[in-house]
Amino acid sequence: MPELRYNFVTGEWVIIATERAKRPEDFAPHTARAQLPAHVATCPFCPGNEQQTPPELFRIPRRAAPRPGVPASDWQVRVVPNKFPALDAQAELFRSTEGLKRRVSGAGLHEVIIETPEHNRTLALLSESEIELVAQAYYQRYDAITRDPRIAHATLFRNHGERAGTSLEHPHAQIVGTPIMPPQVRGRMENALRFYDETGECLNCSVMRQELQDRERLVAQSEHFVAFVPYAALTPFHLWIFPRRHIASFLETRPEELADFARLLRLVLRKLYFGLDDPDYNLTLRAPPREASGLKYFHWYAGIIPRMTRMAGFELGSGMFINTTLPEQCAAFLRDTPADPPS
Amino acid sequence: MPELRYNFVTGEWVIIATERAKRPEDFAPHTARAQLPAHVATCPFCPGNEQQTPPELFRIPRRAAPRPGVPASDWQVRVVPNKFPALDAQAELFRSTEGLKRRVSGAGLHEVIIETPEHNRTLALLSESEIELVAQAYYQRYDAITRDPRIAHATLFRNHGERAGTSLEHPHAQIVGTPIMPPQVRGRMENALRFYDETGECLNCSVMRQELQDRERLVAQSEHFVAFVPYAALTPFHLWIFPRRHIASFLETRPEELADFARLLRLVLRKLYFGLDDPDYNLTLRAPPREASGLKYFHWYAGIIPRMTRMAGFELGSGMFINTTLPEQCAAFLRDTPADPPS
Repeated sequence: MPELRYNFVTGEWVIIATERAKRPEDFAPHTARAQLPAHVATCPFCPGNEQQTPPELFRIPRRAAPRPGVPASDWQVRVVPNKFPALDAQAELFRSTEGLKRRVSGAGLHEVIIETPEHNRTLALLSESEIELVAQAYYQRYDAITRDPRIAHATLFRNHGERAGTSLEHPHAQIVGTPIMPPQVRGRMENALRFYDETGECLNCSVMRQELQDRERLVAQSEHFVAFVPYAALTPFHLWIFPRRHIASFLETRPEELADFARLLRLVLRKLYFGLDDPDYNLTLRAPPREASGLKYFHWYAGIIPRMTRMAGFELGSGMFINTTLPEQCAAFLRDTPADPPS
Repeated sequence: MPELRYNFVTGEWVIIATERAKRPEDFAPHTARAQLPAHVATCPFCPGNEQQTPPELFRIPRRAAPRPGVPASDWQVRVVPNKFPALDAQAELFRSTEGLKRRVSGAGLHEVIIETPEHNRTLALLSESEIELVAQAYYQRYDAITRDPRIAHATLFRNHGERAGTSLEHPHAQIVGTPIMPPQVRGRMENALRFYDETGECLNCSVMRQELQDRERLVAQSEHFVAFVPYAALTPFHLWIFPRRHIASFLETRPEELADFARLLRLVLRKLYFGLDDPDYNLTLRAPPREASGLKYFHWYAGIIPRMTRMAGFELGSGMFINTTLPEQCAAFLRDTPADPPS
């Protein structure tokens, strides 16, 4: 029988439609990213085309020698403003309300983090030391963007593949600093605050303890982080990565924790890549705002939403999702999937 | 400069990124639905294959003679249970909470409304009298489903095209009766209730009055309904159809209002079909629950969300949308688009 599951963290109900369940191996792949070249002359993010992006904001220098087929570059990670930004970095912040028309000027920051000089090396294919540098860049830019007094919140995300909404193949993440707090983020924080008032505990810490106790939805663990399929997973192979320690703001993450997070992220992305033939996905960082440092009732986490199914009218019309797989089954599949290519 | 706009009805902020704006004519079409045949021997919704669906729940008989290429059928609209239902029509309703695992049995109803016997006649291509029958079927099944005491809410929706999540080409809508009230629906009703307490007015009525006053986002009007692009439209050509009269529950809609709604829906769908080359879209009915009859602070409406752009990591990570078109410009384009094929 199908069942509905409630997600305490997000306040969302999900229909787990087990009768429609597909087995993990029934999800077909789509793109042939494995065949991409290491360098594309027309790609604005490939080495040699640095002048095609707006002026660089941040870089991590390259230490290793380039691989065959990749031109030499002096950077490993590079951050630039988005050439087609959703928000204007120069704009002044103002609000106005006229009748039922409330608006805020589009002041904000929109940056692109180019994660590697190599066109065909998505996060799952980076080395541990390379993905640690990517996480450092995430941290540095999240820090820089949230220092801007116009910015109320920063959303860090990564679109992998066409179904996940990417238009450029070259591996990159984005950060958008918005002049308003997204109501969805505020809503989740309010949920967590009520839970804290009722129980004296951080909601996310409680959820993680439940997962560690149940074990059946766990996918992988590291020294500082735990990866699991949420009890009310929105989609097949939906994943959350929670810190073991209560870290309210992403900026309170210590360097060794950040490196450990990057390695665990790489591990689970490799399981998706090799076990499910490189599915499209969105990666998002769910973090309370900068001023949340020290907050007791909520902490940051990362979410990976594979895009193997479509959001259709039911999802848009109700805000609920239908998940055709059992979270426990997805977790077992990923636990058993090696993080290395099949030999 | 881009701007952020707030949607009072949904509580959502949208980034209107005018610098990235595409002109309406820049949205490319995708599918060649116009070339579909009128009858497909293997389609379970085509006449002659009635035994391939679960037993019929409702039908509206056919009066007109079939067109060339379409086998005779004795039905014009036909409603059947979904063969792969998201919820179980026979299940008992129960809830349980164990730690942070809250679940509800998957009791519910999931029906398919086959809108026409003709495989290639999507809503936009039906005659006025045909689409009126479709709206009658929507009403009848919404009524029947919400009478089930296990059902807390019914979501009526339509997925048009692959990007909108449909798997079957033959024109059809769906209704899912869920044993829980979707938190998103409840959230909107709470918003509206607060607005009512503050102003003494229905929020939706106020929004419509604003639109009628501003005029620049209006698309089409009929005796009983108004179609407009919302001030904070989520996507290019996002459309809302609001009743002029305050009708809280969909079930309070009078027959002549329902017929008028169907004709206005057809008109705007034809503008999309001919003006934008048949874009994929989701249609949803936003209605408070059955017991909301007489409610003063909220009323039902229909939404059409064209799926010309993708929901990506930013949308999933923040709950906010980026709309690359100006709502006023989209409305002007649709106002000027004839509802008939270009001659």
